[in-house]
Amino acid sequence: MTVPYDLLLENCNVATMTGDAPYGAIEDAAIGISGSRITFVGPRKEAGTAKERIDLKRRWVAPGLIDCHTHIVYGGDRANEFELRLKGATYEEIAKAGGGIVSTVKATRAASEDELVASAAKRVKPLLNEGVTVLEIKSGYGLDLDTERRMLKAARAIGRKLPVTVRTTCLAAHALPPEYKDRADAYIDLVCNEITPALAKEGLVDAVDVFCEKIAFSPEQTRRVFDVAKQLGIPVKLHAEQLSDLNGAALAAEYGALSAEHLEWANDAGIAAMGRSGTVAVLLPGAFYALRETRLPPIESFRKHGVAMALATDSNPGSSPALSLLLMLSMACTFFRFTPEEALRGITVNAAKALGLQASHGTIEAGKAADLAVFDIGRPAELAYWIGGNPTAAVLRAGRWSKPLCN
Amino acid sequence: MTVPYDLLLENCNVATMTGDAPYGAIEDAAIGISGSRITFVGPRKEAGTAKERIDLKRRWVAPGLIDCHTHIVYGGDRANEFELRLKGATYEEIAKAGGGIVSTVKATRAASEDELVASAAKRVKPLLNEGVTVLEIKSGYGLDLDTERRMLKAARAIGRKLPVTVRTTCLAAHALPPEYKDRADAYIDLVCNEITPALAKEGLVDAVDVFCEKIAFSPEQTRRVFDVAKQLGIPVKLHAEQLSDLNGAALAAEYGALSAEHLEWANDAGIAAMGRSGTVAVLLPGAFYALRETRLPPIESFRKHGVAMALATDSNPGSSPALSLLLMLSMACTFFRFTPEEALRGITVNAAKALGLQASHGTIEAGKAADLAVFDIGRPAELAYWIGGNPTAAVLRAGRWSKPLCN
Ligand SMILES: [Zn+2]
Ligand SMILES: [Zn+2]
Repeated sequence: MTVPYDLLLENCNVATMTGDAPYGAIEDAAIGISGSRITFVGPRKEAGTAKERIDLKRRWVAPGLIDCHTHIVYGGDRANEFELRLKGATYEEIAKAGGGIVSTVKATRAASEDELVASAAKRVKPLLNEGVTVLEIKSGYGLDLDTERRMLKAARAIGRKLPVTVRTTCLAAHALPPEYKDRADAYIDLVCNEITPALAKEGLVDAVDVFCEKIAFSPEQTRRVFDVAKQLGIPVKLHAEQLSDLNGAALAAEYGALSAEHLEWANDAGIAAMGRSGTVAVLLPGAFYALRETRLPPIESFRKHGVAMALATDSNPGSSPALSLLLMLSMACTFFRFTPEEALRGITVNAAKALGLQASHGTIEAGKAADLAVFDIGRPAELAYWIGGNPTAAVLRAGRWSKPLCN
Repeated sequence: MTVPYDLLLENCNVATMTGDAPYGAIEDAAIGISGSRITFVGPRKEAGTAKERIDLKRRWVAPGLIDCHTHIVYGGDRANEFELRLKGATYEEIAKAGGGIVSTVKATRAASEDELVASAAKRVKPLLNEGVTVLEIKSGYGLDLDTERRMLKAARAIGRKLPVTVRTTCLAAHALPPEYKDRADAYIDLVCNEITPALAKEGLVDAVDVFCEKIAFSPEQTRRVFDVAKQLGIPVKLHAEQLSDLNGAALAAEYGALSAEHLEWANDAGIAAMGRSGTVAVLLPGAFYALRETRLPPIESFRKHGVAMALATDSNPGSSPALSLLLMLSMACTFFRFTPEEALRGITVNAAKALGLQASHGTIEAGKAADLAVFDIGRPAELAYWIGGNPTAAVLRAGRWSKPLCN
């Protein structure tokens, strides 16, 4: 005799995102949930008994969405700078009014942990309302030990206060803090010798990231940070080739990075190396849009070399103040010519891989976390087709309704 | 002794969208409402007494938003075609699977009025949830008398069933119906002699529109339709210069059109004529985005000639399946380099003008309709700054809460 599920979702179509069928789709399906886990997914008539059954009225169910790259914890806002720029203000006028990343660093340093949590929560809620159940949050606007710690503690607090699994990334090597002007190596010393080890010891760091770019840190400086992460047993990620080709893709692959991000200028050899190392390409259409970029990431090369592609909001106050992950599907299809299925893989199975969570998240399979998004759509392609709006009817997170189904 | 307002909204900042200050802003303001009208707006301390008072906690209030150009009533959907195209299907394969406007015409002709209302209502709701209180809806997927009538009746029904003022536009001259292949003049006969007069007589037509383009109808055919509208005393609008310059802007101006739409290829003389006739330029960033256009509408020329610029979703199943009007502000600033204030004018005061409703809607002034959108933002520029998300805390329409304030 089998044990009944706690919950059986029936009369639904399921995009399992696993197997060979498009979207791994199972139509007229059911999903059995026991505690916080999925224990069955398959044709409705094969499902067992359940304590509670819910008729999803032929809606589509996908894995809980995963936003695998955000800078969503920060102080202040940059809407004023956005407006000044469009009104034709000069660079000096904007700097004087407090523009650029420096203004965000200043505001973040001035904010308490509670203030950081409150302002970030306001931005996280629209993502959760769309079905996001896993969220990566980077530090990188503190650029000193205390503020980087406060950012990561705020990120952890978001994961306790809201129904979302938060993965933290220490991005202390995001930009050069003003007090280290012309002393980048000295700042990297601080990152390697103090910030990273201290925060790792406090359990605040799930991954380590570096912004490797001419305007940020060199490949050599990146290696120093990655070597420290390696010693600490922490996986790495890399912001690479957004503005120029520094062989960052190959460097990420060499360190077995979980992911490399942006990658507009990545070369074919680097991409081939990513394919071999299983490093995920995280593409950020919101930044591409907001910065009005024209150089497309090399999608065909990722496809050719079997590099898994993920999508994320990159939510941040400067280059991508994005509050919708589903809109990134539309933008990836429109700008990058993703297929809708690639786009949905990019915020489920491949996003899980970019966070090292592929064993527990990102697909609908027995044994995985019962993180599910329920959509009022007739076919999965609609998730990428509509521009704006929110088709998310309900969200289940760890077996509990975080957005309950109405009607 | 003054009569007390029915409702006083206090402790708010108001973007009145009138007067000389940026956004017509009044900070620390109050808005008095009597019945369905605004009867006071000004500094809080100058407000009179009220039967009910609501503390808006320093939120921003703008005029109810106006989406002045949509094709939101239609049958079927085109997500499948969207996906096929991204998967590399040929034109023939897509046509075979039922693509293009012809497939929408077929599905619309097959749909009952109730089906058209139900499917459109699902798309209209996310707009209302953002603060839209006035919505223009065009016909144009029927292309025969019965179906054009059914579309416009469905549009009117949306206005009765949902808390929104609907303005209907007869766009029978949208495309050549398949049964009139190579007989465009004969179809224009039908539009002029039967469809337009009959539907006008039934009170279904607030404006008449034509798609004037090489792939649609010529300027001469447009004139014939406009002449009929003129005889019927109905104002006109024009889809013009989206793909080529046919002197459509000048033609619109000559007929005193309320608006001309798209206008990427409009020439300077035509724009000057629009300035003189008070014809509004309606720009459609969603279609610009979805079609991956590169030719920008001539914003500087509109500014120079004092042409009011409006923005709209153009919500339609093919070139702009957009369900967010606020996202159009972001896209107008990003693609067209609108200022955030121009963008907000584009969906309030200028959108009202594009519908001939400037006497009653589009600004916050005593005497105007009490259509208001309340936003959880720190400054108006945020409406254009964020990419996705929904900052709309509450919506008042004709003096009643259509989206009530929580907390
Ligand atoms: Zn980033
Ligand atoms: Zn249109």
